[in-house]
Amino acid sequence: MNPRILAIETAILEKNDRLAEALRAEFAQRGIFAINVVSSPGSGKTALLEKTLDALAPEIPTAIIVGDLQTDNDARRLDGKGAKVLQITTDGYCHLEANMVRAALDRLGMDGLRLLVVENVGNLVCPASHDLGENMRVTLLSVTEGEDKPLKYPVMFKSSQVVVLTKIDLAEATGFDRETCLNNVRAIAPDAQIFELSARTGEGMDAWLSFLRQRVSAGNSIN
Amino acid sequence: MNPRILAIETAILEKNDRLAEALRAEFAQRGIFAINVVSSPGSGKTALLEKTLDALAPEIPTAIIVGDLQTDNDARRLDGKGAKVLQITTDGYCHLEANMVRAALDRLGMDGLRLLVVENVGNLVCPASHDLGENMRVTLLSVTEGEDKPLKYPVMFKSSQVVVLTKIDLAEATGFDRETCLNNVRAIAPDAQIFELSARTGEGMDAWLSFLRQRVSAGNSIN
Repeated sequence: MNPRILAIETAILEKNDRLAEALRAEFAQRGIFAINVVSSPGSGKTALLEKTLDALAPEIPTAIIVGDLQTDNDARRLDGKGAKVLQITTDGYCHLEANMVRAALDRLGMDGLRLLVVENVGNLVCPASHDLGENMRVTLLSVTEGEDKPLKYPVMFKSSQVVVLTKIDLAEATGFDRETCLNNVRAIAPDAQIFELSARTGEGMDAWLSFLRQRVSAGNSIN
Repeated sequence: MNPRILAIETAILEKNDRLAEALRAEFAQRGIFAINVVSSPGSGKTALLEKTLDALAPEIPTAIIVGDLQTDNDARRLDGKGAKVLQITTDGYCHLEANMVRAALDRLGMDGLRLLVVENVGNLVCPASHDLGENMRVTLLSVTEGEDKPLKYPVMFKSSQVVVLTKIDLAEATGFDRETCLNNVRAIAPDAQIFELSARTGEGMDAWLSFLRQRVSAGNSIN
């Protein structure tokens, strides 16, 4: 839009990328597998992570960093499940950055951790261009949002190694067209692994949990 | 975050505000009532606007400007209903700005218009701080997104004169807690007018359409 702000944004993005690379190197050294979970507001990030922590936190030392503009609602929902939890409130900022993740980890401590989950701010645009040092970006898309979202938010979907279709228990009630949606995901992110699940009914959760367990065991060499 | 980028963002926001004020003055002069429709991706902006144009475009000269990162899907859905339609693709930009609306209006023409609808990029964060010269900001929240969204995205809800709860036909299937949601809306936006509707079943549409008709007839002095 504006050459001046674009130049500065590029410089800031480059700085973020350097910080993210440093985080990724430290995760590798410490054997931590890190995922960055992104979606629209209300796609079910916290619901999925509640069930994920219920299953995995007792067996895998896990930390979770939760980003929101305001409130610590999500951190409270994720607390008490055996994982370390820290809420970042961005006070209007539309995404998390690597320096926020670094600051959160400095407070939480990384000793002995195997899995780090970052729940990003609910936004399908801005988090797409901010690497947080993760080994895997996981984008959620609920069946209530419409089949064309991968086409309309291609940067996010293109940069994701995993796409999770959530709330599949509502597919029939919403008239969700599964084939069209899967085709749209594949058109934008042909290599992404796709899961279809409902955190509420538990349908499809086993495949997601097995995949995560396997990735954590394999270490963080897969990038 | 960064004092340098913040200073420049402030300057850009001030420039946007001046352009928005100029648009608002021109709308007043021409007797155009302008609304800015915002929400998460997939809350049902286009579905609501399809039904709104079906009802109003035959009786009210209407133009609609649609913002998306990519695709002209939404403009195609809104075309052929009697309104002038123009798609803006922002190519990764997370919101519309007043200069984009100005450029779109220069192409569409404003002569004889009574109602201007801007469908913003699906994003509950960035569009909140960008005035487009509208007389009324309308934020949609679908019942599938969760009752706490007004608390988590307060800037958007606080700046809205109207909040529309959409997809109420799915309220039961999603276990939507209506009272909690309405209380959250009122806590953040106590003066906002609230509508509850389903574009799919038509429930609640009459109240929304009557309200819009009345606002257009009253002219754009209400701000």
